[in-house]
Amino acid sequence: MTDGLPMEVPAQDLPPRVRIHEVGARDGLQNEKTVVPTEVKAEFVHRLAAAGLTTIEATSFVHPKWVPQLADAEQLFPQLEDIKGVALPVLVPNERGLDRAVALGARRIAVFGSATETFARRNLNRTVDESLAMFEPVVARAKDDKVHVRGYLSMCFGDPWEGPVPVHQVVRVAKALMDLGCDELSLGDTIGVATPGHVQALLAQLNEEGVPTSAIGVHFHDTYGQALANTLAALQHGVTTVDASAGGLGGCPYAKSATGNLATEDLVWMLHGLGVETGVDLGLLTATSVWMAERLGRPSPSRTVRALSHKE
Amino acid sequence: MTDGLPMEVPAQDLPPRVRIHEVGARDGLQNEKTVVPTEVKAEFVHRLAAAGLTTIEATSFVHPKWVPQLADAEQLFPQLEDIKGVALPVLVPNERGLDRAVALGARRIAVFGSATETFARRNLNRTVDESLAMFEPVVARAKDDKVHVRGYLSMCFGDPWEGPVPVHQVVRVAKALMDLGCDELSLGDTIGVATPGHVQALLAQLNEEGVPTSAIGVHFHDTYGQALANTLAALQHGVTTVDASAGGLGGCPYAKSATGNLATEDLVWMLHGLGVETGVDLGLLTATSVWMAERLGRPSPSRTVRALSHKE
Repeated sequence: MTDGLPMEVPAQDLPPRVRIHEVGARDGLQNEKTVVPTEVKAEFVHRLAAAGLTTIEATSFVHPKWVPQLADAEQLFPQLEDIKGVALPVLVPNERGLDRAVALGARRIAVFGSATETFARRNLNRTVDESLAMFEPVVARAKDDKVHVRGYLSMCFGDPWEGPVPVHQVVRVAKALMDLGCDELSLGDTIGVATPGHVQALLAQLNEEGVPTSAIGVHFHDTYGQALANTLAALQHGVTTVDASAGGLGGCPYAKSATGNLATEDLVWMLHGLGVETGVDLGLLTATSVWMAERLGRPSPSRTVRALSHKE
Repeated sequence: MTDGLPMEVPAQDLPPRVRIHEVGARDGLQNEKTVVPTEVKAEFVHRLAAAGLTTIEATSFVHPKWVPQLADAEQLFPQLEDIKGVALPVLVPNERGLDRAVALGARRIAVFGSATETFARRNLNRTVDESLAMFEPVVARAKDDKVHVRGYLSMCFGDPWEGPVPVHQVVRVAKALMDLGCDELSLGDTIGVATPGHVQALLAQLNEEGVPTSAIGVHFHDTYGQALANTLAALQHGVTTVDASAGGLGGCPYAKSATGNLATEDLVWMLHGLGVETGVDLGLLTATSVWMAERLGRPSPSRTVRALSHKE
């Protein structure tokens, strides 16, 4: 019996509404082994929009060689044209990606940076500063076209090679991304090691150095089970943009190391219990994730999806 | 690389130290399909103590017919005699159970009540008030013997048959357990539906009606992924006793509905990141849970156990 559950009991000093930045179709599918057909992706994004999500990162205009799972961006994006009132940002790695995205009508883009040198080298084949230099013309041209720019910043709390990442190091790159003209940042705990005090310390230091909370989204991974507690800490700091992945896409429940994103359903369960508006219909969203899990041939790693679908 | 992780960054207004009430050997194993041999249980408790846990609920002196997994309480408990400086509470359902436990030298017991009538009837075959009447002589005799008594209160946030559980209903039964003479309470979110505002509202109302936070432990389940966020909310309210189950014992990672306890490792990761002392060695604890998972023939549902054991 889940009628009336979660019971709505607001906590003090939380924002009345949170915007969920849904990353399942991009960050999630990019990290799944199964390559999903374009028409399934298109139906997925349509279903996410029908479930009430208002920001759905759709795909990535990266070279197909690097991310074969999203090699169909050019085919997929036009199939989303009929979705109204929903922001459909796309990831672009460079000017070539920007050209392809804008040519198809994208009005929101995201660039993907790193707070650590090791990950910048391994993921972008550049130093942190070289990657910022690469983003500069991308962001400048996007701004000229009045295209909204999100700056992802990965490894904000720990790095698999470097270990703990100092707050001041993250702040430096975050400020640089804002100085380039990014409209918002997404602070990524890419390996899922953050804890709530660390989250609040980073947010406070960013504020201190002129980055307002209103420009900050948080992007937690559930590798160590910390994602939702960290989200609560961010909400208590005033954050109103939270990244999550429908059904926890991108993390495999059978892998020894489940490195997935925070599942949108687990987030929505907490927010609705807290009386924080999301606009999301949890039943429709869960049904969508169950449907996608069937297409991927494995159960969803989201605990809420498993609990709710077991009861249906 | 996990050296130096989680990075220790204290949050404001949290207790400096938390006592983890480890329930894996009782609540965990009671809910596993596999019946574990007595000598494995004994080694498990010894290993938990060696990992630094100071309160380890050891077994249950319930009739073997009801809980076959723990039918060996009489054989197990004497095998734990050499464990020094560790509290080893045992569950007792009634006076007969109390007699058996105390005869073997138990100095801490727990009774198991329900906040809802439906669960009281189904689990205890009594109304809530009839179950309180049953506990009365158990607690009175325990107090006469200076035996420490914990009162479990299940279904504090939601009930699978009744849905949402009103706060005042929980407070009434909690106060009744305290009035019987219980030294501490454990507030159970048995079906895992609670959210952080609900947790704080219940704690505040209990304080209002005379139950001090120092007498309250929290017992969260991760069915909807909320356990650690709820724990953070409880810590922020001042709670210093948190129940958890090593490796998330009691919840199956392959079941559609993972109804398990909060995993002790996930809790310890957060607490150590927050700079909250637990006395627990996370490496030893994780190794213990990996070892137990092998005995159970399935991986641990704890995300921290999976992440750390993958990297070892």
